[in-house]
Amino acid sequence: MLLGSQMFRKEIKVLDCTIRDGGLMNNHKFTDDFVRNVYTAVNQAGVDYIEMGYKADESQFDRSEFGPMKFCTENDLNRLLGDLEKKCKISVMVDIGRVDPSTIVPKGESLVDMMRVASYVKDIDKAIDLTNQIKAKGYETTINIMAVSHAREQELDEALQQIENESGVDVVYLVDSFGALYSEQIAYMAQKYKTILKSREVGIHTHNNQQLAFSNTIEAIIQNINYLDATILGIGRAAGNCPLELLLGFLKNPKFDLRPILGVLETEFVRLKEEIEWGYTIPYMITGSLDIHPRAAMALRKSDKKDDYTGFYNKLTNEANV
Amino acid sequence: MLLGSQMFRKEIKVLDCTIRDGGLMNNHKFTDDFVRNVYTAVNQAGVDYIEMGYKADESQFDRSEFGPMKFCTENDLNRLLGDLEKKCKISVMVDIGRVDPSTIVPKGESLVDMMRVASYVKDIDKAIDLTNQIKAKGYETTINIMAVSHAREQELDEALQQIENESGVDVVYLVDSFGALYSEQIAYMAQKYKTILKSREVGIHTHNNQQLAFSNTIEAIIQNINYLDATILGIGRAAGNCPLELLLGFLKNPKFDLRPILGVLETEFVRLKEEIEWGYTIPYMITGSLDIHPRAAMALRKSDKKDDYTGFYNKLTNEANV
Repeated sequence: MLLGSQMFRKEIKVLDCTIRDGGLMNNHKFTDDFVRNVYTAVNQAGVDYIEMGYKADESQFDRSEFGPMKFCTENDLNRLLGDLEKKCKISVMVDIGRVDPSTIVPKGESLVDMMRVASYVKDIDKAIDLTNQIKAKGYETTINIMAVSHAREQELDEALQQIENESGVDVVYLVDSFGALYSEQIAYMAQKYKTILKSREVGIHTHNNQQLAFSNTIEAIIQNINYLDATILGIGRAAGNCPLELLLGFLKNPKFDLRPILGVLETEFVRLKEEIEWGYTIPYMITGSLDIHPRAAMALRKSDKKDDYTGFYNKLTNEANV
Repeated sequence: MLLGSQMFRKEIKVLDCTIRDGGLMNNHKFTDDFVRNVYTAVNQAGVDYIEMGYKADESQFDRSEFGPMKFCTENDLNRLLGDLEKKCKISVMVDIGRVDPSTIVPKGESLVDMMRVASYVKDIDKAIDLTNQIKAKGYETTINIMAVSHAREQELDEALQQIENESGVDVVYLVDSFGALYSEQIAYMAQKYKTILKSREVGIHTHNNQQLAFSNTIEAIIQNINYLDATILGIGRAAGNCPLELLLGFLKNPKFDLRPILGVLETEFVRLKEEIEWGYTIPYMITGSLDIHPRAAMALRKSDKKDDYTGFYNKLTNEANV
């Protein structure tokens, strides 16, 4: 049967952000062994990039409260990964206002290949400035425009045009932070990004609140988006992300091998799933379908009312009507 | 944002098959209270049809091994539902060769409104004959062509044309039994069904092996398919089906109300999920992406090797190469 999207396209790059987005569910407190085993599996699977965590400012965040991948200093990364084979490129994420740019060493002195700047539309000037500083140090860069389902269309258009005109960034990501978008909306947004960002690559980062993370990633592929985020077993904040095992099963590039991912699913994720919760639940479905941040659902899931779906829905829909 | 598929279309009919497809995971051994509570919630939610189970031949299947919704006699249905409000229509499924047509009473004497005939392409003559018998007794009828991902295209085309020419059936279903199809394939198949079956409605029944059950149902809506199967929390054989709560959250017809479904999710499904397993797991993902029947994965999940993903994948891919 016809399946254009599944045909081999060499420009496609897969970025695994298991450790980074998954770390949002446990303050990045993964064991060293877990981090190394995930890295090794992703590396062996032929995945193009692996994102290890955030480069958070140590004057703002306390090391006693977070695992090392909240900070991703060169020391942290060298200690964990320095002795391991490295075929994939390493990425870290930086949040506007939560990173000290002076701590970023030149690329030649770093294990990191790419830095991704997460930004809301309103902060796009800061994102462009930060990205240009990082680019000047020799790194590949991306701007990940978060919560795009909440952006006013004219402001989003202007932000994309400004990136195209003023930034040296390599890739601009479409991020469905709330897992609210349906395939037709992904197609519409992807066409907008591709039209305005004529000289850049475009990426996609989805959330699974409505079990659409994988299918929306496929829709992005159909729309010629080439940078694809995924995580093992979809681990990530709240409902999580596009499952890497599904994406690798779909893509036909022979460089990808599913087996190392199946191995680490078996040895690490069966246990982890019993320790921390992520993935599709009814409260996350509700926030996704209402197009709102999952924080209320995350709080509910940690409370003794975690399955009070009706009460939660009534509360949110009443608030929305005020 | 533009979202054609989500616009109100009065021809759309939602069919809940929670009790029928979910019953495949526990030999239909639901408690009477569970069946009545699901029925009541679905009825209150404004869903168009509810499928209660199979009309299995009692000379072939033993009542001591199955719950009553394996048989769905008029006595069974009247005992369980006779005193409940009935806004939705009631459906039962009949399998070719597993039903005794002489036990089907005229529609005027039955609680049932619709009978759905499940058939492989190779049995389409039998399906047409059985459907015509049932139609003559006054019921709405469907033919659900199973395992369409395995059908040879020419044979499927001929079967569809034969249905259009020789059958009185109301609706013909596209059934992705193995959860193997991607959105472009759903679109291609849907266009084929709509083109050949000019005088019939078309329906969709998806499985969630690759977390595509909901998105493929949306793709079917975009392709003007009007009969949509779903189940509460996606319960169904193996990886299960399109979750009803997602579908009702998506459709904008004001006749649908999500709240009764949230209520029964809370009171019945939190507990049920601890008792029986269904939904996305790695073995079901593997059979889905390889486009094969989930029976090997179901056997694995019941064994002490339920998380031996690598061994399972190697076994299946080696067999596929023989």
